[in-house]
Amino acid sequence: MGVACTLSELVARFGGELLDDNGAKISGVAPIERAGAHEIAFVSQAKYLRDVDATQAGALILPREGRDITKRPRIITSNPYLYFARISSLLNPAPQLDPGIHPSAVVHPQARIAATASIAAGVVIGEGVVVGERCVIGPNSVLGEKVVIGDDCLFHANVTVYARCVLGNRVILHSGSVIGSDGFGLANEQGRWVKIPQVGRTVIGDDVEVGAGTTIDRGALDDTVIEEGVKLDNLIQIAHNVRIGAHTAIAACTGIAGSAKIGKYCMIGGAAMIHGHLEIADKVRISANTLITKSLTKPGTYTSALPFSEHGEWLRNAVHMRNLDKLAGRIKELEKRISELEGKKQS
Amino acid sequence: MGVACTLSELVARFGGELLDDNGAKISGVAPIERAGAHEIAFVSQAKYLRDVDATQAGALILPREGRDITKRPRIITSNPYLYFARISSLLNPAPQLDPGIHPSAVVHPQARIAATASIAAGVVIGEGVVVGERCVIGPNSVLGEKVVIGDDCLFHANVTVYARCVLGNRVILHSGSVIGSDGFGLANEQGRWVKIPQVGRTVIGDDVEVGAGTTIDRGALDDTVIEEGVKLDNLIQIAHNVRIGAHTAIAACTGIAGSAKIGKYCMIGGAAMIHGHLEIADKVRISANTLITKSLTKPGTYTSALPFSEHGEWLRNAVHMRNLDKLAGRIKELEKRISELEGKKQS
Amino acid sequence: MGVACTLSELVARFGGELLDDNGAKISGVAPIERAGAHEIAFVSQAKYLRDVDATQAGALILPREGRDITKRPRIITSNPYLYFARISSLLNPAPQLDPGIHPSAVVHPQARIAATASIAAGVVIGEGVVVGERCVIGPNSVLGEKVVIGDDCLFHANVTVYARCVLGNRVILHSGSVIGSDGFGLANEQGRWVKIPQVGRTVIGDDVEVGAGTTIDRGALDDTVIEEGVKLDNLIQIAHNVRIGAHTAIAACTGIAGSAKIGKYCMIGGAAMIHGHLEIADKVRISANTLITKSLTKPGTYTSALPFSEHGEWLRNAVHMRNLDKLAGRIKELEKRISELEGKKQS
Repeated sequence: MGVACTLSELVARFGGELLDDNGAKISGVAPIERAGAHEIAFVSQAKYLRDVDATQAGALILPREGRDITKRPRIITSNPYLYFARISSLLNPAPQLDPGIHPSAVVHPQARIAATASIAAGVVIGEGVVVGERCVIGPNSVLGEKVVIGDDCLFHANVTVYARCVLGNRVILHSGSVIGSDGFGLANEQGRWVKIPQVGRTVIGDDVEVGAGTTIDRGALDDTVIEEGVKLDNLIQIAHNVRIGAHTAIAACTGIAGSAKIGKYCMIGGAAMIHGHLEIADKVRISANTLITKSLTKPGTYTSALPFSEHGEWLRNAVHMRNLDKLAGRIKELEKRISELEGKKQS
Repeated sequence: MGVACTLSELVARFGGELLDDNGAKISGVAPIERAGAHEIAFVSQAKYLRDVDATQAGALILPREGRDITKRPRIITSNPYLYFARISSLLNPAPQLDPGIHPSAVVHPQARIAATASIAAGVVIGEGVVVGERCVIGPNSVLGEKVVIGDDCLFHANVTVYARCVLGNRVILHSGSVIGSDGFGLANEQGRWVKIPQVGRTVIGDDVEVGAGTTIDRGALDDTVIEEGVKLDNLIQIAHNVRIGAHTAIAACTGIAGSAKIGKYCMIGGAAMIHGHLEIADKVRISANTLITKSLTKPGTYTSALPFSEHGEWLRNAVHMRNLDKLAGRIKELEKRISELEGKKQS
Repeated sequence: MGVACTLSELVARFGGELLDDNGAKISGVAPIERAGAHEIAFVSQAKYLRDVDATQAGALILPREGRDITKRPRIITSNPYLYFARISSLLNPAPQLDPGIHPSAVVHPQARIAATASIAAGVVIGEGVVVGERCVIGPNSVLGEKVVIGDDCLFHANVTVYARCVLGNRVILHSGSVIGSDGFGLANEQGRWVKIPQVGRTVIGDDVEVGAGTTIDRGALDDTVIEEGVKLDNLIQIAHNVRIGAHTAIAACTGIAGSAKIGKYCMIGGAAMIHGHLEIADKVRISANTLITKSLTKPGTYTSALPFSEHGEWLRNAVHMRNLDKLAGRIKELEKRISELEGKKQS
């Protein structure tokens, strides 16, 4: 790491209001409860401002509400978490790898690898691949033939990209992720399954990050498309011909079935499942564990999780979940009977 | 690609009724809305026949209901989707790889690799492995000792097959899939877990396809068995000692717990979860997100998903899900009170 | 295998009461229904003792209730499953691999690899890595720089450990598992996501086993911690800054969101989902498919699964799940009306 900055250098670069600066240098970020004299910590929400009292942090990033609650050196900003992200990126730069191709990598002679790219040990790169400037391809990753990737991409170890997929600039792929595997396309012939060749591609825009173990199938005929700025957590499944709109974030263990179109700026909780062939509007939020079975045409938050209970209580309630129609029928019957009684009463 | 066929050649090979043939050659398949003069498109269901009007496709595959709705060259068949699958396979043959073992692959001298097989860069093959004719083993895949695989298998990059597993002919394994990992077998000794050695195998039949990131554990004592023609999507977990019957298809993110026996010709939706030690009959369909907790002895479709709502509406309903037993009690009480009132009325 | 023991040797080693010993040697374990004369089988629960009648097993491990139901050689013990685990481990020792580094492995000159460790073909080990005594690192696995692992670890093929993670002794990692990938840490700037560098580590204790395809993210600032004896099945997602208490076992397809603290000796069923920033007490059991949205402060079993139905029945009930609040309102209204009627009756 070894980078260190004064607070005034940080404010010159990222803005914000600097108070009670003592000229000290900051060399790292840390949680407020264990930050030391050379570290900066942050409080993102007013309700956590009480943590400021006990901190030993050399400096703080605080929201406006915290402007006057301490005499420690501090930067006041409307979005402390974002400010912290910027400082942390500055103080924790990605390790600089030497450009070049490791001798144990197997790169097809017809691949074009930028001279500034770093290709690690054990990487296998197929015919016709293009790798842009300053890309880092981690150990034992595999790029199938004719894969094209832009500049400044970072692929960690053991990543797989199938043939002909196209990735933009600054794409991050975590280990175990698989881009461009065949979609689940099957025709049925008297009970037996016949495979449909998956001849589309997976096309990924700029600034996309794909988590560990996440799989994104290629399209059947058209492409699967992940637009710019999309962030995918671990162990997510994206089926063939899905389109995910720009700047949408999806938490781990989520599955999106074939040909679903997800809007821009959506936030999808963990383990959500989205049926195929539907459309979800921009700025939709889907709660964790929610199953979406129909198109969503307007922004909002959508949920379908069953609340948990202590097991015995759950057992007592669960029996009725399978009998709701009968319960509703009994209520209707009661309404009829009571109306009759009320009628007789009046008559 | 480069393959091209006349429609009469296609009909000679695959059957169907050819109408208004103009002798043109077809070199690819495409979606009906963007197919061009040298491409063939299909309509599988009558409700989509309206798309035929605007198409520029050189030829069409149509169901019987669409026989007379266009003058374009067309093939009439009872199963257009299957017909399309056959044409697409013909026009998109798997790339032919040169047979042989890449110099960077590490193949144990006691392994038997067919001379027609293609072993890619970085592959590691253990002692006693047998690889059949025309198999393709993708870059950086690993076959543990004594693995036996049949003919014409296609393993993509970064696949792992543990020791002693047996795979049939024409098996496709996608990247990141893991075959034969240890089942989750643990005995408990005063709170601590003691591992049960998993000494069974994973045995996979002919024509099975396994999706990216899918894991199939080996058996504890007996084998885990995937029968012929089974199709598994991505990120599926198959636990130890499971048996999946022939020609069953399972969508992504599904989990099947230990020793479950799944029938033949079943269709299991995405993110379904199936408890262990139960049996599911042939031809059962299980909906997406459904939890199966008991054996299913007859065909049918089974479901357990909670419908989603807008979040505020969900909140108002969710509180009652934990109180259904009380609601049911109140209904019962009402029934008793109203019966009493009715009785008094009559008396 | 080749190991064989007399029953008296087993009892001398593991305890238990030996009855009707005939001096025969046992060379393997098998299920009771197919065990042969040189194999030992077990019955763990009294309800399965009826299987003893038909067995051909050379010896049996039985619970106390089965002491006198057969004349076959048998060992009586209070925990037959644990006893079986011990015998199986003895008779199925892990294969002994020759120590040393395969010539195709790429090990940084500044890594320290114990002379007794076995580094397989295609492994890539970064600068500053420490690998302990008798460790086995499987083919094509990758250890990032400064990873430290203890003694007697077993990493199967295609495992990835990111830089600076620390693992204890006897840790088992299955293929496709990813340790130390970046957590899903994002700040939002006017709709666009800004990555938070993930500078913590993943720290794994002694005797932990991690299933195939399971991903454990590194911490954002602090570490993600998996305490000793934790057992993780396949395709589990552990987010950043999670802590899992010692000897907790988690079944496949489960997801645990960021900063959740799971207690010791917990058992978590398959496909459970646990929200972030909550605490779960020691000895909690969570049922399969259950979503935990709040802290659990005391031991017990917790459940939230919706029971499945035949699809038509499910449809009839599901419509009411979205109308529970209205149903509850109708019950309340009925209670009011009937109270009025009852009041009039009395008056």
